[in-house]
Amino acid sequence: MNHITPESRDNHRSSALLTDMYELTMLQASLRDGTADRECAFEVFARRLPNERRYGVVAGTERVLRAVQDFVFTDEQLASLDFLDERTLEYLRNYRFSGRIDGYREGELYFPHSPILTVRGTFAECVLLETVVLSIMNADSAVASAAARMVTAANGRKIIEMGSRRTHEYAAVASSRAAYLAGFHSTSNLEAAFRYGIPAGGTAAHSWTLLHVNEDGSANEEAAFRAQIDSLGVGTTLLVDTYDITNGVETAVRVGGPKLGAVRIDSGDLGMLTRQVRRQLDALGNHNTKIVVSSDLDEFAIAGLSGDPVDIYGVGTSVVTGSGAPTAGMVYKLVEVDGKPVAKRSRNKASRGGAKRALRTHRDTGTAVEEIVLPIDAETPDTGTLTARELTIPMIRDGRPVDGLPTLNEAREHLAAQLVTLPWEGLALSRDEPALSARFVGF
Amino acid sequence: MNHITPESRDNHRSSALLTDMYELTMLQASLRDGTADRECAFEVFARRLPNERRYGVVAGTERVLRAVQDFVFTDEQLASLDFLDERTLEYLRNYRFSGRIDGYREGELYFPHSPILTVRGTFAECVLLETVVLSIMNADSAVASAAARMVTAANGRKIIEMGSRRTHEYAAVASSRAAYLAGFHSTSNLEAAFRYGIPAGGTAAHSWTLLHVNEDGSANEEAAFRAQIDSLGVGTTLLVDTYDITNGVETAVRVGGPKLGAVRIDSGDLGMLTRQVRRQLDALGNHNTKIVVSSDLDEFAIAGLSGDPVDIYGVGTSVVTGSGAPTAGMVYKLVEVDGKPVAKRSRNKASRGGAKRALRTHRDTGTAVEEIVLPIDAETPDTGTLTARELTIPMIRDGRPVDGLPTLNEAREHLAAQLVTLPWEGLALSRDEPALSARFVGF
Repeated sequence: MNHITPESRDNHRSSALLTDMYELTMLQASLRDGTADRECAFEVFARRLPNERRYGVVAGTERVLRAVQDFVFTDEQLASLDFLDERTLEYLRNYRFSGRIDGYREGELYFPHSPILTVRGTFAECVLLETVVLSIMNADSAVASAAARMVTAANGRKIIEMGSRRTHEYAAVASSRAAYLAGFHSTSNLEAAFRYGIPAGGTAAHSWTLLHVNEDGSANEEAAFRAQIDSLGVGTTLLVDTYDITNGVETAVRVGGPKLGAVRIDSGDLGMLTRQVRRQLDALGNHNTKIVVSSDLDEFAIAGLSGDPVDIYGVGTSVVTGSGAPTAGMVYKLVEVDGKPVAKRSRNKASRGGAKRALRTHRDTGTAVEEIVLPIDAETPDTGTLTARELTIPMIRDGRPVDGLPTLNEAREHLAAQLVTLPWEGLALSRDEPALSARFVGF
Repeated sequence: MNHITPESRDNHRSSALLTDMYELTMLQASLRDGTADRECAFEVFARRLPNERRYGVVAGTERVLRAVQDFVFTDEQLASLDFLDERTLEYLRNYRFSGRIDGYREGELYFPHSPILTVRGTFAECVLLETVVLSIMNADSAVASAAARMVTAANGRKIIEMGSRRTHEYAAVASSRAAYLAGFHSTSNLEAAFRYGIPAGGTAAHSWTLLHVNEDGSANEEAAFRAQIDSLGVGTTLLVDTYDITNGVETAVRVGGPKLGAVRIDSGDLGMLTRQVRRQLDALGNHNTKIVVSSDLDEFAIAGLSGDPVDIYGVGTSVVTGSGAPTAGMVYKLVEVDGKPVAKRSRNKASRGGAKRALRTHRDTGTAVEEIVLPIDAETPDTGTLTARELTIPMIRDGRPVDGLPTLNEAREHLAAQLVTLPWEGLALSRDEPALSARFVGF
């Protein structure tokens, strides 16, 4: 599919009302009592990983940086905010974020208390961004974190993302992007292909086969297969489980011949069926015809099929809903005011004050050891024989994105490279402790 | 908050690429083999209710009807579809849905196999709508179905929706709408207030209290409370759990006086804390100061607090993620071709052919008995002493929405009226069979 630069494809309307009301009322109160101009640092982090997973994947960063640029109030929006005083409206009318953002690059692994993103500027300019920053990071990271586990489970086999129909129509587009970042091969979603240049793919629906009935109402699967091949070529994927799978495969091979691209199975006991269909295809001489499976697959089902003759997985619901963890649970907390650390002291929700950066240490072999979290301006400590990699990179300076931030494909490659640095048990699908932990130094 | 008509607020850009690639390739194949013009009926239904719930709530219908109107391809979109032939592109260039849509009104209850939406027209014009229709219905119905259970659990107490930060930034807007439809009192989301006229509300974040530190870095909760009241009036809600709750309440009352609107508690053992805070408020003479609680509440936690002195619940993550069921699992299936029923015969995914309408029967007392599903043009059967209510209403004729479709507030009232018709066990939160089942008559 044709695709031009993401910039020209994205939606450039204002992100300014993707916001909770209290951010604007806090702004108003701060303008009134003089605290609006205090220099603050807000930090995005997660207290834990959902469902006792071993790692999380940072995603959505590029979309966050765009939303910050698009955080501009229109006259119509301002006119609707009749609960604010004139001074606050005037502030919003001129609002452009002018501060700094630093954080983990997109595609980086994160763990509990990793300082994923740090937003610095005046209280007024930073507090407004809370909701939109978290919405994007929580949604995209949830999908990418689930998707990365599926990619690991697929162990080199391709996965097509096809879950658009199971999530909000724009969440679907972001989910396609996050799944691709995590290593999915392609997406069914055309808007994601259009905006982000992700490879698009697809097969056919059961409706296509059902449409092909004879005059008397009887089924005509052959006509459906023939028409699909006439239009899309013999390399296409035929959906063979609308009626009887064995008959479907036989018809598919008869119509498509030895060069038929693939058959798809979307129901039933996929392990048993794929073995049966592989035998049937091989017996018919179709050794190169691939088998695509779909039907409520998640990382566990994918792993369960690892010994079966599956070529491509189609994954829908589970990836767009984060496979049991539809949100990453990241929070946006004030950690520093006028250079001094601040922190909440509530039960179970205590946090650590001060703006932070982080390093990850690795052995000679590349294996990651731990994260070291430091005050943001602290010097890098001596890590002895371990190599220390800087996790925190500058993203926005004076309100503008810095040059050279990772592209989507770079983020995808970065994640793939990081996953292999985890201790081997870190890639397990079972529940356990995080694969790495953060150690705080200098607080 | 000011709000003008939803029409002028909504986003009018094209919905045409919120689509899976295979819909366009099936279109191309159908134009080529002559099946594109076959008159078809597609049906939206759910095979089961998630997590053994008793009922589902239909939501998103109004947004679906808008997406159908907005399903128009721009030149830039068409230029990107380089995998299609010229004839198909020409078809898309002129595409406007010209068929009929009938279905359950927004705010209606549904059960397994309820014919929620029926889309009729040529194969070509109906197949294109599959993904966007399902995305919207699945996302909005998941949220509304969870939210309705929370409203039941709250038993007349108000609930504020405040989950925007835990879901995709536009899913957040739709979630606010769906939660309001289900009976939530208000939302924190300003875009939802702007687009749909939903009442907006909010309190303050911990960052507001943390911002107010003295020169020496020590906490000054009093300054935070005073500034908030100066700006928003004494009716505001003060967040009292940033440091010590007992001190926080004492300070809140000292600053706010007897007319202080409310205090919010966002952490800890909410049952114990609300009882303690209520006693403290009453002892200080603040009998009318309300208690707002939040902190990962779902329907079960809400029900668990029913004996405690809670006035308002703030609900975030659980409602926007469907409380364990982030998608409604609805499907869009071809059920009729040129007047003849068609149906898939696969294991576990069998469906029933033919375009359908449905009635719900009620006793004299109003209690619902069952759903009767009929061929769409069948006459209404005799239901004896039971009253039969038509569930299927016309929504689109000749491609245009019919007049008088329910507004958001009407849908909200309709749902509230329907919930009280369920057999009493139908409102239970526990897992069990659906409260009603569908009986097929005339198939």
